[in-house]
Amino acid sequence: MIGPADLEARAYAAAQLAACGIVLTEAERAAIEVTDFGLSRLRETGLQLLVYVNTDRYCAKELVLYPGQTCPEHRHPPFDGTPGKEETFRCRRGLVHLHIGGKEIVLGPGEQCTIPPDTLHGFRAGPEGAVVSEFSSTSRDDLDVFTDPAVRRVDTLS
Amino acid sequence: MIGPADLEARAYAAAQLAACGIVLTEAERAAIEVTDFGLSRLRETGLQLLVYVNTDRYCAKELVLYPGQTCPEHRHPPFDGTPGKEETFRCRRGLVHLHIGGKEIVLGPGEQCTIPPDTLHGFRAGPEGAVVSEFSSTSRDDLDVFTDPAVRRVDTLS
Repeated sequence: MIGPADLEARAYAAAQLAACGIVLTEAERAAIEVTDFGLSRLRETGLQLLVYVNTDRYCAKELVLYPGQTCPEHRHPPFDGTPGKEETFRCRRGLVHLHIGGKEIVLGPGEQCTIPPDTLHGFRAGPEGAVVSEFSSTSRDDLDVFTDPAVRRVDTLS
Repeated sequence: MIGPADLEARAYAAAQLAACGIVLTEAERAAIEVTDFGLSRLRETGLQLLVYVNTDRYCAKELVLYPGQTCPEHRHPPFDGTPGKEETFRCRRGLVHLHIGGKEIVLGPGEQCTIPPDTLHGFRAGPEGAVVSEFSSTSRDDLDVFTDPAVRRVDTLS
């Protein structure tokens, strides 16, 4: 069920990407995904994302977060004989607080960090929100394992 | 041997990326690669590029071209038991004329195309130059096979 908050989140993400100088097609703007991770507190715990490409070898996405919005702790487990998704976060706008292995790493624009497969991590945007490019091996969001059992990767706009 | 044209090409690439809203660190600006493919006609045949990340699973780069500059026809052959590099070009700025399989595909900002492994392709920027994001499997530029035997992937700035 698509609510006004979800459509607003999609519009917010499109505007943030445009503010980064990122040009999207009409079809891409309409394909921006929004998830509240099943918790119904989108502005606090949620994520907006656009997948550019996801082949059986690599994936590229843009992630957009509201100010203070959190993507909860999770890991990308092994699948199909691979060690699981390895991913590089590159901050484009705002600040992103990345929690990994008990440490916090703060990424500003132009800074990046690679997260090994099957490693617990979560992230939160700073007070101005954040835009983060994600480069990775093949993405299988449906396999993500969240630390909080209440969290599920549900797409609130599909 | 680094000449003034090579440093100018690096500065041009940094300026084009900045014009796209792409923020680079100081170290990244200094790490922009320039190649004239061994032909000593950089403005006609050449490429400027910045590698964000290149792991044993995936790679992400920005490619920058002068107006009308061409990256000559080549293919990415199989290696290490893989089918060779598969890559997605996403145009960020300007126009890129991609030649693949006897066809020309013109990509404008927000448009993208995926090139299968081991497939001959080349590309040329339109009259305003071009900025292209490349998402791919692992990159091994040293293995590239060029159609013109005079062409070599030499880094003119290192």
